[in-house]
Amino acid sequence: MLTPTSTTIISHFQQLQDNICASLEALDGKSKFQEDKWEREEGGGGRTRIIQGGDLIEKGGVNFSAVHGKMPEKICKALQLPNCQFLATGVSIVLHPRNPHMPIIHMNVRYFDTDADRWWFGGGIDLTPHYVYPEDVTFFHQSLQKICNNHDSSYFPAFKKWADDYFYIPHRQETRGVGGIFFNHLSKDETHSFDSRYAFVKEVGDGFVPIYSFLAKKHKNKPFTKEEQKWQFLRRSRYVEFNLVYDIGTKFGLDTNGRTESILMSLPPMAAWGYHVQPNKGSAEAYTQSMLKKGIDWASG
Amino acid sequence: MLTPTSTTIISHFQQLQDNICASLEALDGKSKFQEDKWEREEGGGGRTRIIQGGDLIEKGGVNFSAVHGKMPEKICKALQLPNCQFLATGVSIVLHPRNPHMPIIHMNVRYFDTDADRWWFGGGIDLTPHYVYPEDVTFFHQSLQKICNNHDSSYFPAFKKWADDYFYIPHRQETRGVGGIFFNHLSKDETHSFDSRYAFVKEVGDGFVPIYSFLAKKHKNKPFTKEEQKWQFLRRSRYVEFNLVYDIGTKFGLDTNGRTESILMSLPPMAAWGYHVQPNKGSAEAYTQSMLKKGIDWASG
Repeated sequence: MLTPTSTTIISHFQQLQDNICASLEALDGKSKFQEDKWEREEGGGGRTRIIQGGDLIEKGGVNFSAVHGKMPEKICKALQLPNCQFLATGVSIVLHPRNPHMPIIHMNVRYFDTDADRWWFGGGIDLTPHYVYPEDVTFFHQSLQKICNNHDSSYFPAFKKWADDYFYIPHRQETRGVGGIFFNHLSKDETHSFDSRYAFVKEVGDGFVPIYSFLAKKHKNKPFTKEEQKWQFLRRSRYVEFNLVYDIGTKFGLDTNGRTESILMSLPPMAAWGYHVQPNKGSAEAYTQSMLKKGIDWASG
Repeated sequence: MLTPTSTTIISHFQQLQDNICASLEALDGKSKFQEDKWEREEGGGGRTRIIQGGDLIEKGGVNFSAVHGKMPEKICKALQLPNCQFLATGVSIVLHPRNPHMPIIHMNVRYFDTDADRWWFGGGIDLTPHYVYPEDVTFFHQSLQKICNNHDSSYFPAFKKWADDYFYIPHRQETRGVGGIFFNHLSKDETHSFDSRYAFVKEVGDGFVPIYSFLAKKHKNKPFTKEEQKWQFLRRSRYVEFNLVYDIGTKFGLDTNGRTESILMSLPPMAAWGYHVQPNKGSAEAYTQSMLKKGIDWASG
């Protein structure tokens, strides 16, 4: 399943991982990524890169993988595909910042291919602030809107809604954060070629560093209190709840005997649960909580 | 579905909750339980009791509930029952101690009844030490063995194995802790009457305080280091992984729109994830990790 096309995409994703790691190390200024290369018995492998204890990033991962071989039976069923060979490759990022004023960020770009005449791209970027700064969120959504509009004006509204719906924690009746874009199964259709889909996904990947740099420079050195950090730990525990209970990638990885330490790199360095914690009325914490809902039109500012 | 029998069991469980809370407050010496009474729209309700910031217990819950009404369709299917009325009542405990030398403990006793000629008891007690003290674990297993043997000599080996199998984290290839007993669907059969099952479950419930008191008195005031606390936070994150990914009660509760704050009382006050953390060879942490596996015959000492 390593066609010339898939080999090109794999190389591109590896390069993207390299570029992002270099930029993040420069932004952090203190910590470096440690790399673990791993191989999958049935074919392919990955490069897990973890950064910990940084000035900017308390714990984060920028993972690349490209796995291929015979498609597991349960995935054939789930995707309604015949027995076939598959390739799945992508870059996955989650960064937990040290400073509570800086948001958690997640990005993923991925490509899936089979020899059963089915392929697609997927991915997205979304933001989980511990404290919502509306101007940051507007900057974030406008940046994504611009990337989308360079390719298809229907992308942003559709993928923004998809993120709202996907990054939702039903048992808390709140969104994981302030959304962003999420997309999947982007394949060939009447108006999109392989090249146009690929160009879009490339631009999403390239959009990560400028967005994160802007936010990092703004918040990295902001002073914060113990109380703000306590709130950060509580917000991180919601991130844990989403990822362990609902996230499809995490479930899929754990179910299919994936590399646990790579899959769970998304979990925070420190998190806290309290009983029925309610922020004080009118506080920044209460404002943040009130913004964790679907359907807010952040891009219009 | 409130038969005279079920009313008796409900009263007993309420009394058990009262007794356990009083004993735990006495043991803790600092913090008191706060109670939230809640009602279920379709029938029944509960008393959630949470203790936080204690000298002994950093965060814990002792919950009672008795819910009844029309059985949700998906549960009828799962249990292969016709449309029927049901009652589910029980007491559920999880205690996260402040001191890393003190173990996390979990207990649950429950009764399920329907008007479709099906009822059963379930429950168990299990221990999750941050640091394994073999003499504590032997005491714990022997206490449970004694309780079991008062009722049926086949109980302990069967329910000990059930706990080993149930409290297992496949993606970590380790048990949640050092096990204990776990049982479910204890109903009437050739050798067991309703009364004999009920007597056993009552003794399991009554066994909790003596066991926990013994451990608490031993470890409550033991000095501990920052490093030991850090290890405690790492072990707690495994507890989170088990409860959010595998625990059937948690899944069931979140799926059926249960009271989130009551269900998730099991989660710890503070937990930490690291990347691929490996304890030093020969350390107490390494010893603990090596004991987190199925099939250890702790009761024989």
